[in-house]
Amino acid sequence: MKKEALSTESYKGVRDFYPEDMAIQRYIFDTWSKTAESFGFERYDASVLEPSDLYKSKGAENEEMVNEQTYTFIDRGEREVTLRPEMTPTVARMVAGKRRELAFPLRWYSIPNLFRYERPQRGRLREHWQLNCDIFGSHSTMADVEIILLASEILKGFGAKASDFEIRVNSRALWNAYCEQWKITDEQRQSLSGLVDRKNKISLEEFNTAAKTILPDDSVYTAFLSVIHQTGTTPEMPEYHTLQKTIATLKELGISSVSYDPSIMRGFNYYTGIVFEVFDTDPANRRALLGGGRYDNLTELFGGDPIPAVGFGFGDVTIRDFIETHDLMPAELQSIDIALIPMKQEYALEAEKMAQYMRAAGKKVYVSLADKKVGDHIKQAEARHTKAIIVIGEEEIASNTFTLKRLQDGFETKGTIKELLASDD
Amino acid sequence: MKKEALSTESYKGVRDFYPEDMAIQRYIFDTWSKTAESFGFERYDASVLEPSDLYKSKGAENEEMVNEQTYTFIDRGEREVTLRPEMTPTVARMVAGKRRELAFPLRWYSIPNLFRYERPQRGRLREHWQLNCDIFGSHSTMADVEIILLASEILKGFGAKASDFEIRVNSRALWNAYCEQWKITDEQRQSLSGLVDRKNKISLEEFNTAAKTILPDDSVYTAFLSVIHQTGTTPEMPEYHTLQKTIATLKELGISSVSYDPSIMRGFNYYTGIVFEVFDTDPANRRALLGGGRYDNLTELFGGDPIPAVGFGFGDVTIRDFIETHDLMPAELQSIDIALIPMKQEYALEAEKMAQYMRAAGKKVYVSLADKKVGDHIKQAEARHTKAIIVIGEEEIASNTFTLKRLQDGFETKGTIKELLASDD
Repeated sequence: MKKEALSTESYKGVRDFYPEDMAIQRYIFDTWSKTAESFGFERYDASVLEPSDLYKSKGAENEEMVNEQTYTFIDRGEREVTLRPEMTPTVARMVAGKRRELAFPLRWYSIPNLFRYERPQRGRLREHWQLNCDIFGSHSTMADVEIILLASEILKGFGAKASDFEIRVNSRALWNAYCEQWKITDEQRQSLSGLVDRKNKISLEEFNTAAKTILPDDSVYTAFLSVIHQTGTTPEMPEYHTLQKTIATLKELGISSVSYDPSIMRGFNYYTGIVFEVFDTDPANRRALLGGGRYDNLTELFGGDPIPAVGFGFGDVTIRDFIETHDLMPAELQSIDIALIPMKQEYALEAEKMAQYMRAAGKKVYVSLADKKVGDHIKQAEARHTKAIIVIGEEEIASNTFTLKRLQDGFETKGTIKELLASDD
Repeated sequence: MKKEALSTESYKGVRDFYPEDMAIQRYIFDTWSKTAESFGFERYDASVLEPSDLYKSKGAENEEMVNEQTYTFIDRGEREVTLRPEMTPTVARMVAGKRRELAFPLRWYSIPNLFRYERPQRGRLREHWQLNCDIFGSHSTMADVEIILLASEILKGFGAKASDFEIRVNSRALWNAYCEQWKITDEQRQSLSGLVDRKNKISLEEFNTAAKTILPDDSVYTAFLSVIHQTGTTPEMPEYHTLQKTIATLKELGISSVSYDPSIMRGFNYYTGIVFEVFDTDPANRRALLGGGRYDNLTELFGGDPIPAVGFGFGDVTIRDFIETHDLMPAELQSIDIALIPMKQEYALEAEKMAQYMRAAGKKVYVSLADKKVGDHIKQAEARHTKAIIVIGEEEIASNTFTLKRLQDGFETKGTIKELLASDD
C-alpha cells in the first residue's frame, strides 16, 4: 500500500536555509558578533519559549499583541506559552533575575530568532533573526552614544560607506517635555505619538488633518507643527540640549550622518529617553534598517529598583537586503580546501587516510565517494567551491607522488602529500 | 497602583544562557562546526516550526509520539504545527525537496534546537541543541566509515583521548537477516527489537524471561541468546561480513576502540543499515554520548526514489557532561583585551576615541562607564576576564602617554596608544 507523498514545503512563512543561504546567514551573524565583541559585548541566549505573562504586563496594547500577533498556546500543564516575538522582555527578565550577582554596567548581545503571527508578505516573515545589543545599568549619555556608534560600526563592518546610511535621533524625554508644555491629556499624547510614528507612511495633508483633530486648539497645533517640522527657534529645554550634546559627541567620534529627527518615535511604549533609527540612503531601499533607544523602567516589572538600559535590534532580512542593495556580499562565503578523488572506489580507504592527515594540518578535505567519471567528480568539486583536487590512482599510490590541481587556474603541483600541504599554505 | 511583580523564571524545562554558560555553548558549537567542516560538511538550518504531518507518517508509534511527546498546536489558519523534536525528518524533507538541483553525495550538518514535551528531570530538558551530521546519496560503506570517523574526531576535537570513549556498532540489515532466519513474525520482531534496545536498562534475568515470552520456541530462543551474547560461531551471513569489514576499516584509520555490539538498536524505526552508539568509558558517566546509523528509505515518504543516508546526532547536554567529567573545559572561554578606565567621566569621550582606534586594530575594548573608584573598575574588569587596563586621567591625556597594565601579573608598559598596541600583540 503506497501512502500519499508528504509535502516537502516548509511551514508557511518560515525559511529553509540550504547551505548557500546558510553561508550568507552565518556571514551576517559572524559580522554582527565580531563587531559587538570588539566593543566588549558579551553574548547571551535563552529559549524561544517564554511564559506569555512576560508580554502582557507592559499595558493593554501588549495584551492585544499577545493575543493576535504571537504564537501563543496552552501546554499540557495548563501554562500559557509564547514563542518570543522580541528579545527585550527576555533580556530584562534575565538581568532582573540576577541583578545581585551581575557587575553593572553590562554590555550584552544576542542573535535570537523571533516569531510573529502575521500574514506572510515580502520582508514580513513569521520567523526572523535579530541582533540585540544592550547596555544595562548606565544612565550616562555616553552609553547612548556608544550604542549608536556600535550600530554604525556594524554597518561599516559589512563594508558600508558613511554615505550609505543615515542615523536619525529623537528623545522620548524631549517629546514628553513638549507634551507637558502643550498641556495635552495622556490620551491625546498617546494618539499624537501614534500619528508621529506613522508620519512617513501617510501624506502631509492627512498628517496635518489628523493632528488638528487630536490637538485641543490652534496654538498647540501650530506649536506641534513647528516642532515636528523644525521650523521654530531653538527651544530652551534641557532635554533638547542633552540630545544635541549626544549628536555632537557622535560627530566628534566620526559619525557624520547623524541628525535630530522629531518624527522618530519607535512603536514600543517602554522607551524613556533617546530613540533612534538608521536609514538606508539608497532610494531603492528606503526603509529603517534598525532602531532602538533607552528604556529605563522595563526591569521594574520584575520588582526592585529599575535598571537603566539602552539598546537596539537589527533584523537578518533587513541587513541582507541592505548588503544586496549596495552590492556588498563577499564573493566566496563557502569553501572547501581539497577534494580527494579516488579513480576507483578501492582507493577510497587510502584517500580517507590522506584526508585525515590533511585535516590534522587544518585543511577542509573530503573524499569523493560516488562511483563516476573523474570529470564528474571535478564538476561536483567546483559546485562545492572546492579550491583544489587530488586524483588518486594506482600509479600515484605506488609512487607516493600526487598532483594537487588548483581549480581556479588549473595550476598543478606534484609531490608527496606532506610536500603538497607545505606548498598549499 | 503597583502591579504584582512578574516572575524572572524562564519557562519550565528550558535554559537561560547567561554569558558564562553561553561561552561554553559557543565553544561546543564552534568545536562541532570546525570538525564537521574539516570533513567538507556544509551547514544548513530550518525553522523550529514544522507541519505536524512530517512526524506522523513514519508509522503508528510516531503518531503517538507527536500527540504525547511534542509541542503541537493549531495555528490561526487551522494548520497543525509542531516544534521539531528531531532534525532528521526536516533534513530529509529539504533534501527530497531539491533532489534535482543538489549534487549528491551531500555532506551536511546542522546545530538545531529540538523540543520534547516531557517531565523535566536531570539531563532531560524540554529544549536542547543537537549536532546533526549526515551524508546523503551514497550507499558506500565508506560513507558509514566516514560518519563514525567524524564522530570520533569530534570527541578528539574536545580533547578526548582514544581511551575516553568506545564505539559500539551493529547493523539493522544483519538484525533483519537474523530475524528472517528465525522465521519470527513482524510483531515478534518489533517486540524483540524493543527488548534489545532496553537491554542495558533491565536485569539479565528480566531480559531473558521477556525474550522467552516473545519468541516462538526454545531453539529460536537459544539462537537469539547466542547472537545477543556473541557466544556462537562466526555466522556465514554477508551482512555480518560487511559489518566486520566496516569495523576493520575503522581500525585501519586509527580508531581502536570500536567493536560489534548486537544489542545496539537505536529507537527509531527508520534505520536500515549500520547503527552505532558512542559510550563514555568513565564509570561516572556511563551513558551513550551520541548515536546514529544508516536510513536509506526516509526520503521515500516525499515521493520519488529513496535517497540513501547515514548520519548521527550529538546533544549539547551530553557533550557538556562529557567535557566536565573528563575535565576538558578550556580555562579561558570569555575574554576582553583592554578596559579603558576614565578617572573622571569627562574623559569618557577621549577614552571612546582611543577605544575606536584600538577596535580598528582588532582589539576587544570597552570604556568603563560607571562613576566609581578606579579599584572598583579594576575589580569589574577582572570579573569580565579582561586582560589589561589603561587608566585615563588628566596627566595621561596632557602628556599623551598611557600605562597598559596586564591584570594577570601587574606588568606595566608605558607609551602612546599606538606604541601600546604594538607592544600588546
